[in-house]
Formats: sequence, structure tokens, C-alpha cells
Amino acid sequence: MAPIRVGILGLSDAKTFFGPGAWAKYAHLPSIIALSGDYEVVAIANSTVESARRSIAANDLPATTKAYGSAEDLASDPDVDLIVVSVRVQKHYELTKPALLHKKDVYVEWPLGATLAESEELTRLAKENGVRTIVGVQARADRVVLKLKEILASGEVGDVMSSTVTASTGVLSSDAWMEGLEYYVDFSSGGNEYHIFFAHFLDSFVSVLGDFDDVHGILKSFNKTTAIFNNKGELIDPAYPRTTPDHILVQGTLNSGAVASIIFRKPKAAVDNVGFRWIITGTKGEIEVTTKETQWQMADPSFKLRVKVGKEPEAREVDYTDDGDARLSGLEAIALNTARSYAAFVEKDESRYATFESATKTQRLLNRIAESAGWK
Amino acid sequence: MAPIRVGILGLSDAKTFFGPGAWAKYAHLPSIIALSGDYEVVAIANSTVESARRSIAANDLPATTKAYGSAEDLASDPDVDLIVVSVRVQKHYELTKPALLHKKDVYVEWPLGATLAESEELTRLAKENGVRTIVGVQARADRVVLKLKEILASGEVGDVMSSTVTASTGVLSSDAWMEGLEYYVDFSSGGNEYHIFFAHFLDSFVSVLGDFDDVHGILKSFNKTTAIFNNKGELIDPAYPRTTPDHILVQGTLNSGAVASIIFRKPKAAVDNVGFRWIITGTKGEIEVTTKETQWQMADPSFKLRVKVGKEPEAREVDYTDDGDARLSGLEAIALNTARSYAAFVEKDESRYATFESATKTQRLLNRIAESAGWK
Repeated sequence: MAPIRVGILGLSDAKTFFGPGAWAKYAHLPSIIALSGDYEVVAIANSTVESARRSIAANDLPATTKAYGSAEDLASDPDVDLIVVSVRVQKHYELTKPALLHKKDVYVEWPLGATLAESEELTRLAKENGVRTIVGVQARADRVVLKLKEILASGEVGDVMSSTVTASTGVLSSDAWMEGLEYYVDFSSGGNEYHIFFAHFLDSFVSVLGDFDDVHGILKSFNKTTAIFNNKGELIDPAYPRTTPDHILVQGTLNSGAVASIIFRKPKAAVDNVGFRWIITGTKGEIEVTTKETQWQMADPSFKLRVKVGKEPEAREVDYTDDGDARLSGLEAIALNTARSYAAFVEKDESRYATFESATKTQRLLNRIAESAGWK
Repeated sequence: MAPIRVGILGLSDAKTFFGPGAWAKYAHLPSIIALSGDYEVVAIANSTVESARRSIAANDLPATTKAYGSAEDLASDPDVDLIVVSVRVQKHYELTKPALLHKKDVYVEWPLGATLAESEELTRLAKENGVRTIVGVQARADRVVLKLKEILASGEVGDVMSSTVTASTGVLSSDAWMEGLEYYVDFSSGGNEYHIFFAHFLDSFVSVLGDFDDVHGILKSFNKTTAIFNNKGELIDPAYPRTTPDHILVQGTLNSGAVASIIFRKPKAAVDNVGFRWIITGTKGEIEVTTKETQWQMADPSFKLRVKVGKEPEAREVDYTDDGDARLSGLEAIALNTARSYAAFVEKDESRYATFESATKTQRLLNRIAESAGWK
């Protein structure tokens, strides 16, 4: 099969890790290059053709790569099969729509839409136009997440009775934030700590254990403002409003009948140096995932997976590292799950990547939790 | 000051650790003996005078110790100052009432009454008769609990934003239970895993962090029956109804404004070998208590207390072991907190022991949680 011809919307020519276009540069592009038998970058679209050209040069893409100055122009190219939308969430809807109307397959970064309504509308359009979709909640392809599913399916720990998550968001400062990324502290942006950091984990949680039947949330903010600094380290605003909650407590019953609790707290730093502690309690045994303080979706090598069956004195550490895909071995951890999701998309294995439809379910759950907590 | 003259209701002459009268034998009696300058056992009351005499002999009490066959007779003795009620909770109300009416001070084991109504009535009677009271939620005198209060009061970790507890009740089997102690698996008894095991921790939690403003509970049982064995190991009943919940999820906001989550789950054994993991997150730092799988109130030496201030790379372990009371050094861990509560009672330091009134507050909270969960 010929490689899937990819056009990327939002590939930076900058060298900085944070800021517009960086995620496409550090996650999408290396993934596509690693899977070069299956994918090929054929076009870049930025806000201007010049910017797209700079990006092509800066990223050492072939001179034949086409440069576009709009989403519409890229979507109109008959030689593009898949369009990657990797820009801030506020622009997802506007930039994805042309691709769908031109019947292109699309890979949109998470969150799909800035609001549930946008995501639902995009999902409807994708269906109507018969295109294949993928959304960047890439931890669905994470090896630990897949291993959890495997262990549960094996029956080794019996039926799930409960699951308890204690997480720290200490890696994301509540005191200081970066100019240009203010949306990340702004709840109404739809692309903030709640809708991104928390959501990536929540998506994995329900992907492993199923959705919530009843759910009750408490959202609370103790850090109501943050200082904003520019990239020279200069203070831009001493008290920018911080409207995303810094404490997230979720409690409920899953469709399976198991009970669940997910707590995200914001210490200066976690007392136990653990970022995520996810316990799954079965009738026969118990599973635990622990990580250092990090972002869930980043395939951090600190992830530890342990299983204890019955009354064994010590839990057994489970190896989850084998990818079975040698092409990914050279990738940085940060790109790894994105690459795995691209691989799953080729294989049409929806157990390892999210579609518009299945990603929107997670956004719906985020809304239910926020609504139950009365957070707006 | 002359020692407080103690009469004990429910001191076993048996050698077994479980069963009627054992707690008085292994916790109360050694405590009173250790504090012999402050307390002196002068009378024992059991269901018959003969049984009381056997207990006096079996426990090597002086021959002058009086033997009574009823709570009324003990309560009528003018040479008794304090009556200890250490029997199963179903009899607390009936056996405590005579002591109050005869204006004796009383030490009643936890839970005070089998129902909130009983506890409230006993509290009213105690007030009316002007007696001093103490209830056996003895972890209020636990060194770790007191150290937590001390750290919080020092301001070292700032204001409390949240607290998260993940506990395992794996030490209490859900498959097999002991004949004669069926009340411990029976929710309506008022003296079961919820009202005892969970309650001892809950009492410490609110004693350190204050009461709940809003609270929401989920109680769930996956083990709806248990086998009952007699003390010869013979199966008495293969499927005795187990109506106490094996999963307890509590989420809410404290009066202080901090948010809180307490999860008790029942694995076969905790995957991380941790019985209680209690994290308190402050604006400046974080505290963690961890224990092996045990009962909270038992002063288990496995308790570990750690504090991390700011972004220190590692938490600092805090020593909490110094009692400052050499008289307690020979006691078994199991009796230690009971002894400390006796010592606090002499010093009239209500920050280290529970009165009828303050213990009843915890029972009220237990009821609120169960009601919010719709558990009866």
C-alpha cells in the first residue's frame, strides 16, 4: 500500500519546546518520519505560505513538500489523504471543518473542539463525509494502558471492584505561567489543565475501566491568580486570573458496577514523588501503576506496573516495555504514544486510538464532572 | 491525689484474644496497671458474681477486688469513681445508664451507643448527672495524630488545601469470620467494620482536620456473605449475610474549606503493602502518613510520617515516637493508645481523648455518610 499522504496544519519553524507549532514538531513529525513506510509528509499549511515554507526548511522536509497559507487550500489538495490539525484548541473547529468537507481523513489534537458542541458538530460532519478520524488522546496506545487491559482481560485479578487514583499536578506551577499559553489556566478556553492534563488521564481511565454511570465531582481552586512571564523571564502580569481548578475530586460508580475515585491535587511537589498512583482492586488481586511527577500521556519511562494476586507478600513488577514495533525505537518518549496512535490508525485498531466519536465521549464526561461540581 | 478507683464491666477470664472481655483484658487492664499512681482497679462486674470472681483470679487482681454480677450493683458501690464499659456495643446503653444515674465517671468503649439515638441519650444523661466521660476512640491520643496537629499548627506546610486517604481493609477477611463476632459483619449492629474499623480512622481524620461541611458517600458491598467458623476452625455457616460495606468512598468539603477524599477498599491484600496512606496537602508543603495493613487505632510501630516543604527533592521522615511518659514504655502497642487516653483523662486534656459529646459527633458523621450513600 502506498504511504498515507499527510498535510500538517501548525508545524512550527521555531526551536522552542513550548508555544505554537511545537507539538507538531516534537510529536507528530518524528512519528510520521519513523513510520515512513506508512506515512509521508507532502504538505504544510500555516497562517501564511511564507511561514509554511520556513517550516518546511527548518524541519528539513523535502523541497517537493507543498506550502499552503490556509486550511482551505490544504484541504483542497487532491494529493493529500490525511490532515493533521495540531494548533491550539480554539482553532480546531475552524481549521478541521474544511478538511472534513473535502473528505480528508483527519488527525486532530486533543481536545477535539473547544466546546462539546464543537466536538459533536465535527463528529457529525466526519460521519456525514465518511472520513476516518483520530484524536490525540494518545495514551490509548500507551503500553501501560494496553497492559492494564490485557491483565484485566486475563482474569488474573478477578472482577474489578474498585479503582482509586491519587495524582499530583505539582509539575504544573500554579504561581508562574508562560505568556502566549494563558489559555492553559483559563477554564473557558477548553484547553487548560482540566481539559488537557486531567483529561488525558481520565480518557485512559475510562478506556481501561469503562465509563461512569453515576459521577460526582468537586472542583476547587486555591490559586486564583498566577504570574505571567514572557520567554525572557520578564514579569508580564503579576495576577492573571487562574480559572482552571487546581483540585479535582471525582467519585462515582462505573457502568461495570465498580466504584471509583480520582483525585488530582496540587502540592508544591508530591510528598512521595509520585505523580500518578492508580490502583485497580479486583476480587482476586490488585494492580498498581505509579509514575514520577509527569504528564500521563507522555510515555514517561518512570511508569511502574505492579500486580499482586491473593495474599502474595510482595507485588510482582510487570514488564510492559516491549513495543513489538522496531520502527519506534529511536523516538523520544514524548513522541512515542503519538507514533503508536499513528501505527494503530493504519491498522484500524480502535482499541489503540481515539476517533472523534470516542474522544467526544471523554469530553462529555469532563462536562458532566464539571457540571456536577457547579464549575463554569 | 488518691488514685481513681476503677470498676470494670466486661473483663474476661479467658486467654483468647478475640471474644467477649478480651479488649478489657488486653487494652484497659494493662493501661490501668501501667498508670497505677493515677488509677486502681477496685471492682469487676460480669454477668454473674462467679464470672467476676474468675476474672479477678485469672487476671491476678488483688483478693480485695470486689466482684459484682450486674452493672447496677457495680454502679451502686460508693467506693468506685470510674466505671469502664468494655463489652459489645449492643449492651453499652443498658450497662452505662446505671453508672450515669449513680453519678460515676465512665469510660465507654467505641462506639458509644449502638445507634446515634442511644449515644445522644447517654450524652444527655452524662451532662444531667455532671459526670466526666471518655470514649474509646483512643487514636485521639496517638502520637502520629498529635504530631500531625502539631505540624499543621506550626504553619510549616501552610494552609490545608486538601487531604486524600487511600486505605485497605485487607486485614479483615471478607470470606471467613469468627462465630460469636457476627455483629462485626452486620451493619445494623452498629459495631461492625464500618462503625469500628472505618470509624476509628474517620475520628482521627476530623480530629486533625475538622468536620465535613458537605459530604457525599458511596458504600458498596461485593462480598455479600461470609463463611462463619467456630474457634475449633469448624465451618458453622457457609453464607452468613455480610451487610457492612466493603468499599467506602467519602468525598466532601471540610469546614475549613479544604477538600477531602477518604477511600477504604477491600483487596485480598494491598498491592503496595500499605494499609493507610493519608496525604495532607498544604499551600507550602505536604504531609504523608503510611502504615502497613493494620487497624488505625492500634499504635502500630509501622506508622511512617513524612513531610515535604516546597520543592524539596525528598520528604523528611518525622520522628513521633517520644511519649514523654515513661510509665507506658512496657505496654504492648495494642494497649498504648488506650493507656494514653487514660493519661489524658487524668490531665483533663480533651484534645487527646474523646468525651461522649465529641465522640457522638463522629457517630453523627458516620450516619451522614451512610445516609448520603443510601445505605441502611
